[in-house]
Amino acid sequence: MTSLASQSNTTTQNDSQTTTTAIQNILSSLLDVHQFDPSQIKTDSESLEHWGKDWTKHFAPAAAAIVFPKTTEQVQAIVLLANEHNVVLTPSGGRTGLSAGAVAANGEIVVSMDKMNHIGQFYPADRMVEIEAGVVTEQLQQFAESKELYYPVDFASAGSSQIGGNIGTNAGGIKVIRYGMTRQWIMGLTVVTGKGDILQLNRGMVKNATGYDLRQLFIGSEGTLGLVTHAQIKLERQPQDLNVMVLGMDSFTDVMNVLSAFQAKIDLTAFEFFDDVAIDKLMAHGQVQEPFESRTKFYTLLEFEAPYEPIMDKAMAIFEECMEQGWVVDGVMSQSLAQAEELWKLREYISETISVFTPYKNDVSVLISYVPEFIAEIDHIVSSNYPDFEVCWFGHIGDGNLHLNILKPENMSKDDFFSECQIVNKYVFETVQKYGGSVSAEHGVGMTKKPYLNYSRSETEIEYLREVKKVFDPNNIMNRGKIFDM
Amino acid sequence: MTSLASQSNTTTQNDSQTTTTAIQNILSSLLDVHQFDPSQIKTDSESLEHWGKDWTKHFAPAAAAIVFPKTTEQVQAIVLLANEHNVVLTPSGGRTGLSAGAVAANGEIVVSMDKMNHIGQFYPADRMVEIEAGVVTEQLQQFAESKELYYPVDFASAGSSQIGGNIGTNAGGIKVIRYGMTRQWIMGLTVVTGKGDILQLNRGMVKNATGYDLRQLFIGSEGTLGLVTHAQIKLERQPQDLNVMVLGMDSFTDVMNVLSAFQAKIDLTAFEFFDDVAIDKLMAHGQVQEPFESRTKFYTLLEFEAPYEPIMDKAMAIFEECMEQGWVVDGVMSQSLAQAEELWKLREYISETISVFTPYKNDVSVLISYVPEFIAEIDHIVSSNYPDFEVCWFGHIGDGNLHLNILKPENMSKDDFFSECQIVNKYVFETVQKYGGSVSAEHGVGMTKKPYLNYSRSETEIEYLREVKKVFDPNNIMNRGKIFDM
Repeated sequence: MTSLASQSNTTTQNDSQTTTTAIQNILSSLLDVHQFDPSQIKTDSESLEHWGKDWTKHFAPAAAAIVFPKTTEQVQAIVLLANEHNVVLTPSGGRTGLSAGAVAANGEIVVSMDKMNHIGQFYPADRMVEIEAGVVTEQLQQFAESKELYYPVDFASAGSSQIGGNIGTNAGGIKVIRYGMTRQWIMGLTVVTGKGDILQLNRGMVKNATGYDLRQLFIGSEGTLGLVTHAQIKLERQPQDLNVMVLGMDSFTDVMNVLSAFQAKIDLTAFEFFDDVAIDKLMAHGQVQEPFESRTKFYTLLEFEAPYEPIMDKAMAIFEECMEQGWVVDGVMSQSLAQAEELWKLREYISETISVFTPYKNDVSVLISYVPEFIAEIDHIVSSNYPDFEVCWFGHIGDGNLHLNILKPENMSKDDFFSECQIVNKYVFETVQKYGGSVSAEHGVGMTKKPYLNYSRSETEIEYLREVKKVFDPNNIMNRGKIFDM
Repeated sequence: MTSLASQSNTTTQNDSQTTTTAIQNILSSLLDVHQFDPSQIKTDSESLEHWGKDWTKHFAPAAAAIVFPKTTEQVQAIVLLANEHNVVLTPSGGRTGLSAGAVAANGEIVVSMDKMNHIGQFYPADRMVEIEAGVVTEQLQQFAESKELYYPVDFASAGSSQIGGNIGTNAGGIKVIRYGMTRQWIMGLTVVTGKGDILQLNRGMVKNATGYDLRQLFIGSEGTLGLVTHAQIKLERQPQDLNVMVLGMDSFTDVMNVLSAFQAKIDLTAFEFFDDVAIDKLMAHGQVQEPFESRTKFYTLLEFEAPYEPIMDKAMAIFEECMEQGWVVDGVMSQSLAQAEELWKLREYISETISVFTPYKNDVSVLISYVPEFIAEIDHIVSSNYPDFEVCWFGHIGDGNLHLNILKPENMSKDDFFSECQIVNKYVFETVQKYGGSVSAEHGVGMTKKPYLNYSRSETEIEYLREVKKVFDPNNIMNRGKIFDM
């Protein structure tokens, strides 16, 4: 007689055996039929660990193999074999994601774009360049610079993240107020769909009104519809003479007034914000200088181009008006590029500085108009339920994107802290929902935000997402278990 | 005994009878159950003629009824009834389309958004406004102006076209080089899908990485997936001190050099072009003045903001450099707003001026880098095959969008001319395809460009378009027969 438990165990072993055989078959076929050389496949445990995860910490990697295609046709071969053998693929870029969108936790084959990192044709008149999806964001930024142009999507992980991943999450960053998200710079995509079809979407045109723009569907789809292999990227003229102001305010309403006052007259390239908790930690850490003597509740960092003297005069006039109105308590303006860079550190060093407090991070957004009420409401929820928790706010206020960081009290264990934060999460997301906001502004859903997707998308909408996925990936082999379950 | 022919005739009569009954049932239900008042339904022949067509001339309108919903719920009622009774709906906005996207040629019920033309809540901090889909483009522009803001999508038919229609075709126009297409200004949409579900897509956020952005699918879908009922629209700061230059060049390569020279240093708000045929006709028509003494092969109109004196100096310096390089033969710059408006007429009056030559119009685009070769190739095709045909080019060269107009020779009949042009069309679209371009840059596909869709989208891609449509409109009741056949 066999117990049910051991029967179930046998089934798992058989399943596992089947999967192992399937993976072996796929890898053999790639080597024998599809011109993969052995360096394009890795199965050693170190590689499985390395390429099997992104910057998220909560999921253990368990990839079955890592493959490194060099061409769109090789990607297509992988996808067709995965369909044939019912094996799931995890697309993988720079693996700097924070939502476990690129974690292979269930025996997937990771498709790494590391070897598709070439910059292709440049079109000067179009200010456009064709690149492979594995090009690193910074590599593209540097290429643009070499052509005296500018790729304006920028964020802390730009030195490691790949454009394919940026497209998968529609990456944002610190210049969105002026330059928009990644979406705005993608003029064309070559993709391999989950069915294994190669599609060339939009082919670089600015204007193309010939039916549904499938390119837009792939942007932000986190590799669940297929794999992006090439992209045509628009570049912009370089910003000229960037100036930075840091201003201190006592209320969030004042922050909003200042935003409106500047935005009416000056094209801002950034409007970032952080609070007094952030500045406390920054000062304690000692790497940056206090911007001015007064300590205020909120700080904003504004950046704008000032290639002409009258723009500086205008900025000063708006600043003075803000002081007169009582919106701004104190402020400082950069007088050189070096000073501008120094001021940026106030914003850029926050993440690193607070990391010692094991922050529980959320990346949410609401309409800019709702930000003051939203922040007050969350502060109230946390302080009344968890008086020991310290909340640190910073973010891209110019586009309604807030990074909410709950700091761990020193005397609390990590595990206790995280379980408490999971409970806070529910309140936070209920508040996000109440304001019609987003539970993931720029980090994507992946596995981390999947349980909370319904706070931002209705059940009906999610059902449409599922149906759309079926069109491109009927066998659910592309990044299964990310964003939503089928 | 009944002949097969008369049997078939009977069937048609029965079908027609069934349809008539279905339409009667829908209209009764709208009146009795869904709070429509009689003024919201029209079936008189004049109305059927008026609301049954757009600006396209080649299709005879044959609508069965026109309905004018006032709320999203009334739109939903119409869609659910249409599904139940298998009746096709034609969404209808300002009906200024040029691709027969809003023509009801097969007994459809036209859903006119004329009564959903209210401007709703304004969010100053977000510089965003909520509007109903029937708001006229110019009405939105004026609302923006009343808030000292700017809605930058602009084109000749802005006085009649509705935002819902602009969204349906992702309308472009004359300021795309700086402000992008309609897509860039749509922060959220309320839609009723072809299945009858109400979806609120993106709800106005700048940053929202929570799964596929279905809003983007509806933009440019020409009413084939569902009906847009509300939109959240981003507004921009008003342009300041616009200046206009008109320059004359002898070759298209020079045009490209001038574009690059200016774009490297100045943010252009427009870069339009027209050729010597256009200027010939304009001068013969006598409503506008010759911009300068020399007559050149090509003309460009540049517009840019110059709120600061140094920008004017910079523009003059670039102009002089272009003269020195031999790219520009002659040029003129506006010294006042009145002069700027006068110069714009050179570009704006072309369509009206050439209309007496019964032009056969095409609206195509290719990468900007390919424009010189593309124009030369089309000119060669037309002149070698049809030496009597005169070709007039104008368009938005800054985004690769060319309006190709073939003028009818005086001694040729309209019908002969159009059949000849249909043959030319094939050559034109083969050339578009060779350059990887678009057979419809900003006018949409509708019925007019449907036979040519495969010149811009592969068969595989079109199959995906069909599958996507099925997700939102499984019974194919939404604008059936537009873009592609199922």
